[in-house]
Amino acid sequence: MQASRPASKLKFKNDLPKSTVFGDSAILIYDGIFDRQVLTKKWIQTFERKYSVRSGEKLKNIDTFPKHIKSILKLAQGLPTQEITLVVLGGGSVGDFAGFVASILKRGVRLVQIPSTWLAAVDSAHGGKTGLNVSKIKNQIGTFYPADEIYLIKSILKTQPEARVVEAFGEIIKISLLEGQGLWREGQKLKSISSDYYWKLLPQMIEAKYRIVQRDPQERLGIRHLLNLGHTVGHVWESQLKIPHGLAVLLGVAFAVEWSFARGLMNSKIYYEIRLSGMGSYLPDRFELKKLLRKIKQPQKFLLQDKKISTNRKIRYVFVKSPGRPVIESVSVQELIAEMARQAQ
Amino acid sequence: MQASRPASKLKFKNDLPKSTVFGDSAILIYDGIFDRQVLTKKWIQTFERKYSVRSGEKLKNIDTFPKHIKSILKLAQGLPTQEITLVVLGGGSVGDFAGFVASILKRGVRLVQIPSTWLAAVDSAHGGKTGLNVSKIKNQIGTFYPADEIYLIKSILKTQPEARVVEAFGEIIKISLLEGQGLWREGQKLKSISSDYYWKLLPQMIEAKYRIVQRDPQERLGIRHLLNLGHTVGHVWESQLKIPHGLAVLLGVAFAVEWSFARGLMNSKIYYEIRLSGMGSYLPDRFELKKLLRKIKQPQKFLLQDKKISTNRKIRYVFVKSPGRPVIESVSVQELIAEMARQAQ
Repeated sequence: MQASRPASKLKFKNDLPKSTVFGDSAILIYDGIFDRQVLTKKWIQTFERKYSVRSGEKLKNIDTFPKHIKSILKLAQGLPTQEITLVVLGGGSVGDFAGFVASILKRGVRLVQIPSTWLAAVDSAHGGKTGLNVSKIKNQIGTFYPADEIYLIKSILKTQPEARVVEAFGEIIKISLLEGQGLWREGQKLKSISSDYYWKLLPQMIEAKYRIVQRDPQERLGIRHLLNLGHTVGHVWESQLKIPHGLAVLLGVAFAVEWSFARGLMNSKIYYEIRLSGMGSYLPDRFELKKLLRKIKQPQKFLLQDKKISTNRKIRYVFVKSPGRPVIESVSVQELIAEMARQAQ
Repeated sequence: MQASRPASKLKFKNDLPKSTVFGDSAILIYDGIFDRQVLTKKWIQTFERKYSVRSGEKLKNIDTFPKHIKSILKLAQGLPTQEITLVVLGGGSVGDFAGFVASILKRGVRLVQIPSTWLAAVDSAHGGKTGLNVSKIKNQIGTFYPADEIYLIKSILKTQPEARVVEAFGEIIKISLLEGQGLWREGQKLKSISSDYYWKLLPQMIEAKYRIVQRDPQERLGIRHLLNLGHTVGHVWESQLKIPHGLAVLLGVAFAVEWSFARGLMNSKIYYEIRLSGMGSYLPDRFELKKLLRKIKQPQKFLLQDKKISTNRKIRYVFVKSPGRPVIESVSVQELIAEMARQAQ
């Protein structure tokens, strides 16, 4: 039995804040790669208590969790529980892991997230989902535990390699299509995918996510399920072809747009507007979808394992009528597989 | 960042409800001793999905947690997340463990507690505290996750051996002293400690705990700290002399009454009223306290490890002015040790 919690306080800054702003009882949990970067190396050293982790899905493995929690509890020794603050610097996996730690350490301590990737800054750091993997299945345990504060640091986000920038685009076009309005209109001006462009749209994109999360913080009402736009088929690509999450979602959104059109939910005027728009022109085209759909093996087996599929083998699939008008329809696994076959032809 | 959750729904019944009332997606987590009891053996067999555990602090060890969670997730396979209900039959350790599991399994599932000991029925099943132990230190990780429903089953509670009945008395006199009023007056009629007597007072005792918990569900305001009456010195006995929790609390409450009187917070009229009252006459007397205080070694070292002790080595100690009028005063570790020495003379 859980009740909702208030949204996180957002702080947009050019540079990392001094470690002293987090109080005397701060513990830094951070991606070890930042020990090797000029921008962050000295900042990390200003924390008396710190714990370096290696990012990636392995970090979220339940088997190594006892070892991690023991080390972190050692760092927390002697600190007054009410004042402990976990400060987290890293991308999605580090945020999921450390958010979970914060939610259970001494039955919950203060949590400050500093997402270091665009994917985390736009999406995963917000909304409070934390998680660990059990027997290689993702997020089998976890909590809803929104960070107290989330810092969006321009200098950190801008140092990402180009590949990470492109990977974030899937979640960006997803949230823009869900939100519509100003965010989608802004997207029409997109000339090229770049950190500058992301930074400019970041507050609006985060706001759009919160508008959905706050109506259904614990995913009980089906509203938050809208955020799964592009994820159903995206997950198949991600897990079978090891395509990075962001790109898989981008493909999944393109698939959803195609299906929405073919199903008659989206009219042709809107379909072509999306396809030819600034943002939409970066969606993978029919040819690319076809190529990648043909690589998927045994989709049925995979889809039936998906935790979001309800008892009677129905999938609550997120379609798009137009930007700002998503719609969830219940489809059978058979229908989805038939559509995958159609788009693969 | 956590917000409070509604209180649990209480159900007082003579016998265990049919397993079917918990729905098609129920998973029973239970103390294995009930496989050997006539009253429960057949009932357990009516659950399609069940997981037997061995009660005790070892169950709460983080090192064995990955193994447990994997087995429980296997049982949950294929069930729709929103409908999973963990039904928990057991005492304090089983409730703490399974409550924690429920709070993180798929980010939180329905939880039904069926406390099987008086200690759990009166105290630990209520208020939502769950916990695991790390490096032998109790409840270093955990959540606040009140059960959706708590069943109080007369036939289960009445089959406890006499020793368990006596052990619960510490928490019972604690809550009666905190509440005062009707509950304390009822206590005056106590002729002998018995299950019948507990069953009669159970609704009132649980209500008294909820009145405190609901004013401070996440232990942030200091109000919930009142429930630590008798626990500061109690924990020293519990951990050093391996005295059962309930008896240690009983001794701790007696110590607190003595100190409240000696400190001038409680006047002599009230002190003797308590000491000579129905309930109060079961409090360990000065001679017994003396004997057991003399067995404590290095209290200072132990007290400084206590997670409730704040930075400046002060303890927020719960005194009692009179039944229904507890008061928290900040005392130094030195003061407490001096008082332990005084009562040991």
